[in-house]
Amino acid sequence: MDLFFKYLKQKKYNKKEFLLEQDSICNFKCFIITGLVRAFVIDEKGKENIIHFGIENWWVSNMESFILEKPSHLFIQALEDTTVLLITKENLELAYVNIPKLERVFRIITENMLIAIERKNEYYIKMGSKERYTSFISELKTFSQRVPQYMIASYLQITPEYLSELRKNK
Amino acid sequence: MDLFFKYLKQKKYNKKEFLLEQDSICNFKCFIITGLVRAFVIDEKGKENIIHFGIENWWVSNMESFILEKPSHLFIQALEDTTVLLITKENLELAYVNIPKLERVFRIITENMLIAIERKNEYYIKMGSKERYTSFISELKTFSQRVPQYMIASYLQITPEYLSELRKNK
Repeated sequence: MDLFFKYLKQKKYNKKEFLLEQDSICNFKCFIITGLVRAFVIDEKGKENIIHFGIENWWVSNMESFILEKPSHLFIQALEDTTVLLITKENLELAYVNIPKLERVFRIITENMLIAIERKNEYYIKMGSKERYTSFISELKTFSQRVPQYMIASYLQITPEYLSELRKNK
Repeated sequence: MDLFFKYLKQKKYNKKEFLLEQDSICNFKCFIITGLVRAFVIDEKGKENIIHFGIENWWVSNMESFILEKPSHLFIQALEDTTVLLITKENLELAYVNIPKLERVFRIITENMLIAIERKNEYYIKMGSKERYTSFISELKTFSQRVPQYMIASYLQITPEYLSELRKNK
């Protein structure tokens, strides 16, 4: 892994700063050392919808934009002061060539991302809002205290009012 | 790739046969040679919800069950007579060791799966039912004629009645 660090660059984002904005091409993957980010899209009505959060030890990127070099539909924004290790697409391709074992590492990272997103989708289909909230809280206890309530509501696709009701009755 | 074929087994499923049932552990990945499958979950009300379809040249599996060896929440069922190349988890692990380049192949396959699922999620959040239907039809023209309408409705999370209305007005 020491070899790999040559290809990474440490970068700091202030709270509220954007790692990625809509319509730009995402040419990086970031490994979060400390901090917290959210990825969101803006829908037809101008409303922000949180797709996922990224915390310590997770990689964040917009895969479609990164791989296909298409303009991003996503915003990625720091919710706390955030320090990341960033790798550009060019450096990652170079690193794959020079450190073939990295293919395995990123194959496994990508599988874990896929599992996380599939699990979230299943939750949404199989569960009511209340069960979603309970699962979210039990899986992400400490994390959920770092995020404003209205963002948790957006992520769970429920209204902030309903979330507040669920919290009272828990 | 010739080396890799040693690890694969050709298997045929009749129309309506299950490749995977809920609560069993998914210990395979299948590459579809001919045919069509659907992956679905049953929600609390007993309703079937289609998560995705799988067609020729796609890999299907339940990643969470496959990787974490947990009972599957998904069913995978053939919608036509379907022929696949199947690889078990044991054989895939063996193949990764003996053909290191396979890591790259499956890293890229997994990335493409992730892109497909992320794109679908974005559609659901950003678009109304009508736009979803139009995008689906324009992206999957031939495929959409092979699937019963009520399954397309389930996949698009709209009612069969509304789908029929959209088709009339297109």
